Amino acid sequence: MAQDPLVVFTPSGKRGRFAVGTPILTAARQLGVDLDSVCGGRGICSKCQIQPGLGDFPKHGVTVASDALSDWNAVEQRYKDKRGLIDGRRLGCQAKVQGDVVVDVPPESQVHKQVIRKSASQRPITMDPATRLYYVEVAQPDMDEPTGDLERVGQALEAQWNITGVTASLGVLRALQPALRKGQWTVTLAVFQPPHGRAEILDVWPGFFEGPLYGLAVDLGSTTIAAHLCDLSDGSVLASSGLMNPQIRFGEDLMSRVSYAMMNPGGDVEMTRAVREGINTLFAELAREADVELRQVVETVFVCNPVMHHLLLGIDPVELGQAPFALATSGSLSLHARELELSNLNPNAQTYLLPCIAGHVGADAAAVALSESPETSDDLVLIVDVGTNAEILLGNRSKVLACSSPTGPAFEGAQISAGQRAAPGAIERVEIDPVTKEPRFRVIGSDVWSDAPEFAEATAETGITGICGSGIIEAVAEMRMAGLLDPSGLIGSEAQTGTPRAVATGRTNEYLLWDGTEAGGPRITVTQGDIRAIQLAKSALYAGARLLMDELGVDTVDRVTLAGAFGAHISPKHAMVLGMIPDAQLENVTSAGNAAGHGARMALCNAGARAHIEGLVSRIEKIETAIEPKFQEHFVNANAIPHATDPFPHLAAIAPLPATHFGQGGEKNSSGRRRRRA
Amino acid sequence: MAQDPLVVFTPSGKRGRFAVGTPILTAARQLGVDLDSVCGGRGICSKCQIQPGLGDFPKHGVTVASDALSDWNAVEQRYKDKRGLIDGRRLGCQAKVQGDVVVDVPPESQVHKQVIRKSASQRPITMDPATRLYYVEVAQPDMDEPTGDLERVGQALEAQWNITGVTASLGVLRALQPALRKGQWTVTLAVFQPPHGRAEILDVWPGFFEGPLYGLAVDLGSTTIAAHLCDLSDGSVLASSGLMNPQIRFGEDLMSRVSYAMMNPGGDVEMTRAVREGINTLFAELAREADVELRQVVETVFVCNPVMHHLLLGIDPVELGQAPFALATSGSLSLHARELELSNLNPNAQTYLLPCIAGHVGADAAAVALSESPETSDDLVLIVDVGTNAEILLGNRSKVLACSSPTGPAFEGAQISAGQRAAPGAIERVEIDPVTKEPRFRVIGSDVWSDAPEFAEATAETGITGICGSGIIEAVAEMRMAGLLDPSGLIGSEAQTGTPRAVATGRTNEYLLWDGTEAGGPRITVTQGDIRAIQLAKSALYAGARLLMDELGVDTVDRVTLAGAFGAHISPKHAMVLGMIPDAQLENVTSAGNAAGHGARMALCNAGARAHIEGLVSRIEKIETAIEPKFQEHFVNANAIPHATDPFPHLAAIAPLPATHFGQGGEKNSSGRRRRRA
Repeated sequence: MAQDPLVVFTPSGKRGRFAVGTPILTAARQLGVDLDSVCGGRGICSKCQIQPGLGDFPKHGVTVASDALSDWNAVEQRYKDKRGLIDGRRLGCQAKVQGDVVVDVPPESQVHKQVIRKSASQRPITMDPATRLYYVEVAQPDMDEPTGDLERVGQALEAQWNITGVTASLGVLRALQPALRKGQWTVTLAVFQPPHGRAEILDVWPGFFEGPLYGLAVDLGSTTIAAHLCDLSDGSVLASSGLMNPQIRFGEDLMSRVSYAMMNPGGDVEMTRAVREGINTLFAELAREADVELRQVVETVFVCNPVMHHLLLGIDPVELGQAPFALATSGSLSLHARELELSNLNPNAQTYLLPCIAGHVGADAAAVALSESPETSDDLVLIVDVGTNAEILLGNRSKVLACSSPTGPAFEGAQISAGQRAAPGAIERVEIDPVTKEPRFRVIGSDVWSDAPEFAEATAETGITGICGSGIIEAVAEMRMAGLLDPSGLIGSEAQTGTPRAVATGRTNEYLLWDGTEAGGPRITVTQGDIRAIQLAKSALYAGARLLMDELGVDTVDRVTLAGAFGAHISPKHAMVLGMIPDAQLENVTSAGNAAGHGARMALCNAGARAHIEGLVSRIEKIETAIEPKFQEHFVNANAIPHATDPFPHLAAIAPLPATHFGQGGEKNSSGRRRRRA
Repeated sequence: MAQDPLVVFTPSGKRGRFAVGTPILTAARQLGVDLDSVCGGRGICSKCQIQPGLGDFPKHGVTVASDALSDWNAVEQRYKDKRGLIDGRRLGCQAKVQGDVVVDVPPESQVHKQVIRKSASQRPITMDPATRLYYVEVAQPDMDEPTGDLERVGQALEAQWNITGVTASLGVLRALQPALRKGQWTVTLAVFQPPHGRAEILDVWPGFFEGPLYGLAVDLGSTTIAAHLCDLSDGSVLASSGLMNPQIRFGEDLMSRVSYAMMNPGGDVEMTRAVREGINTLFAELAREADVELRQVVETVFVCNPVMHHLLLGIDPVELGQAPFALATSGSLSLHARELELSNLNPNAQTYLLPCIAGHVGADAAAVALSESPETSDDLVLIVDVGTNAEILLGNRSKVLACSSPTGPAFEGAQISAGQRAAPGAIERVEIDPVTKEPRFRVIGSDVWSDAPEFAEATAETGITGICGSGIIEAVAEMRMAGLLDPSGLIGSEAQTGTPRAVATGRTNEYLLWDGTEAGGPRITVTQGDIRAIQLAKSALYAGARLLMDELGVDTVDRVTLAGAFGAHISPKHAMVLGMIPDAQLENVTSAGNAAGHGARMALCNAGARAHIEGLVSRIEKIETAIEPKFQEHFVNANAIPHATDPFPHLAAIAPLPATHFGQGGEKNSSGRRRRRA
């Protein structure tokens, strides 16, 4: 007796013998091959497209004859006429096995396709969204066996998709009845299947509904709300947009917002309303930009720091403003978006908030951990998310630690004399010639350096308006390398440095970066006060990292990852010259881009990522900088540039720093002061 | 070595030996004795009161010495001074074992106490509410082990009460924070534990909160909404009230409401709003009457027919107006009361709707089944819930069947010439002397019969206004017994009956019950049309019951239970004379009172009752009268009074019926017409 034909799937390599006449989709399902289908093999959805091979496949030991699959059939023809089908493609549910065959599953036909990642360090996203579309054929009501429409839909989901115990809101229950009748007892359901808990029907469409479903990944920062609108079938980002957090009118930094809530009864409610309104506006904008029906947006994921977390949820944040920094809830939250008054999405849209790590280390840090996965690293990695507060993670396969450190807003250009937000016209890159002490720089909005002849023309429109976070870091580091700044942070005088750009102002000096006064523009200098602000910020950051290193009993780390939108613009060398981060091989200091945003997208596109980060956060060891006596010691020692006591051998090899000393006892070192949390 | 002292609990008889110093509450818990406690043994709640015995207990083989328990202590003294304590009572958590002792647990100290039932047939209610109060001591936040308040509350519930995986709404999360601090890390929680699904904290109070919690059992009828406000700790009914269903303005009966929804787009939404407003008004009234805080009302249970079920949920009922009478959902529903806009209860109050049995046999019938438990009956019981539609259950231990039958509103006094709702002034009892053919009657609001001298005075205030449902049934049955009415339902003429009260009107006769015209009152007669209306209604009821008997292959039933508020007023003998119900021994025909309301209270007070009725409903066999050809045949045969073909031997033994025949061919029998469903 002849053997059944052999079916080999690529790229998985899964293979098996199947009776003549078996549909390819059926063979794929029996072998556990990742082949998509929304309609359940009824020739409607075309998600199961496959590409049969022809000829010899020595690797698989198969020769495929031209009649290895059943003939092109009417269903496929109808589909091709209506919607088009790439030449050579077949519908897996229609093409039937006739002989040995090699079948390729193209990426777009895989449910669990991978999303292209933007940064090497980020974990890849494998699509496995919590909410998917399912087409079902539902039994008609029968007076002899009376059951409700919902119960028969539940039976269909169980029989046709193996989804059990499904629930539905009253709204869906209301919509189910007409949809079933309009679709002649076929409907497409958006079903949310959380890692824990019961599946829920979020929405229903009569007959076959192609989708797609959408999701929003939101990075809710103190300053900016950034959101990505994603297609939940392939993870693609259809639109991204940001908005100033409207809470800024209640306070620039988190601490002042907590104070606002403390001083003004109902202030937290006002701030909650403001941020929710902002989010709704942003969502509507994104949908308009991507031309997407908001009804099809069925999931949202939020990452944010603990104060924003509480204000989004409508919980008074005052407890977060004082020891013991108690969170109202630290676990992840799964709720309906309508509970957050996110009212223009699908009425049953889901919201997932990642867990908080501690009272100062929020869901944003959890998202960074999800994206950067320190728990899978063989070498010891320090991950720093630089913002108004720095979140710091340190770890490897055996252990992961976390803390936050109150850097203040200096790294974002605030509290800097010529500081400004990163916007066109802001100085973002600085170089200073160590011999002539002359600077050159670039501003946001132009690629031209300031010493190029076409600079004036290139910046005519934006002007030169100030200096942003990455600009001030580079300026200070370059001043240190050029011998304009000594290790204690003192700016030398014109006499000491030999350049007229070192200008005396009272008892201190400042360095003139740009004088635009003749053209009616600003005079941009780096003042002694600016240096002190940067020193305080970088000391806090370094001290936090050092505390975690103490806890692990190490003096060095193998890798440093700079996360955050701001991290993407920091030059690793300058950060190390400043002593923001511990000494490391320069090539091992990398930017992770917007790791928190990537973590949010992972949780959006992959339900398993939620369970994963919940497990990881419960294992992360939290260190509270505020009560750790050694933090103060580390902070003081980190005040020097790059550091008073810690050696920076890797840095020394690439950027020898002049051992100048400008101190005359006239200027008091301010490093003893401790910044308030901000 | 001496044995540990013996502790015997009564009434359970549970016994065990415990070390000297063991608190009685601890001993009770270890033995599984049902002894209440809200504070977990901290001497706060006093729920664990016990009554130690003294002296000889030969039955238990114990002699109790006067020092068998530890001395009265300061906690008990403080409690007694503050709140009082019955002499001889002790707090179980304070009194410690010192010697052999017999301890009585009084009913009020039992969690699972039984509620006194109103009818012999109703199942007793054992208290086991889904929502209870729990006092917990919560760990304070710790910076070294940062967790959220909610997580620490969850840990406390698990450690102190063995309740795991608890959730909370954002509102509770918001309230938790200040409550924990105000209560110095002690709070009392209202925790809802559904039979399936996760426990949910519904509300929180700082420190110890005594309660009680309340629940509302609602019987949502087409005509009346009746609700009972119950104490969830002992099941007592604190207030009961009814309200006309405000939907009446959209149609008197269910079918006309379905038509209203069909003819008026948005009509279902209007009716949903009306009924929800009515319920909110009723709830507020009940709370006022019982002087109860609505915040403490945490549970509601609804029983209703399928159309009211859909209109309460906001689902268009039109599908229920036509075959196949498809329900949107047939299963039970557990949701937040706020989803039904029941907005003046606790914000997280729960609502439970019993399952529907079929498209015409609703959650009200399920509640009757829960109350009357035919599935536990050894003999075959027929349960009839008489209303505008009759729901009929037939069964015993081996099988339970259900159907509904479209009796129409005649039994409620509608479609009757002098008919009216049961209200003061309505004739509710009728007797006719078989010799003189003279009637006497009683009206609602007075105990005096109309042939008594004081009748005029007794009814001066109410007047004699009409005839209600039970009155017309008695009148027709009495007319039949007095020979005024023949088996076909024809009223005899004056000549045929020998009484001037038989008055010719056109081609038919009517029977004059009361002539109040001289005093400006109504002339109340029973017309031939009234007889026909009652015949149609009783035929439908009997035919439904007969259909179920066919299905079981029986010709007789052992017991008949009349349920429904109306059922409580029907005289069993008269019902049998009419042939509303099958022949049975008269003492086996009983009233169950408001069985649907009792079922609602059971589901309110006992969470297990919910799982029980869900299981039972899934096993009940549903018979659809509308598509059963034999229904028509049964209906026609049941038109005669009491019946054309079925023998009524038990009836014959107690009420011989004259075999008169008034038919002259002049009046067409109307039994061939089939009523529309109403």
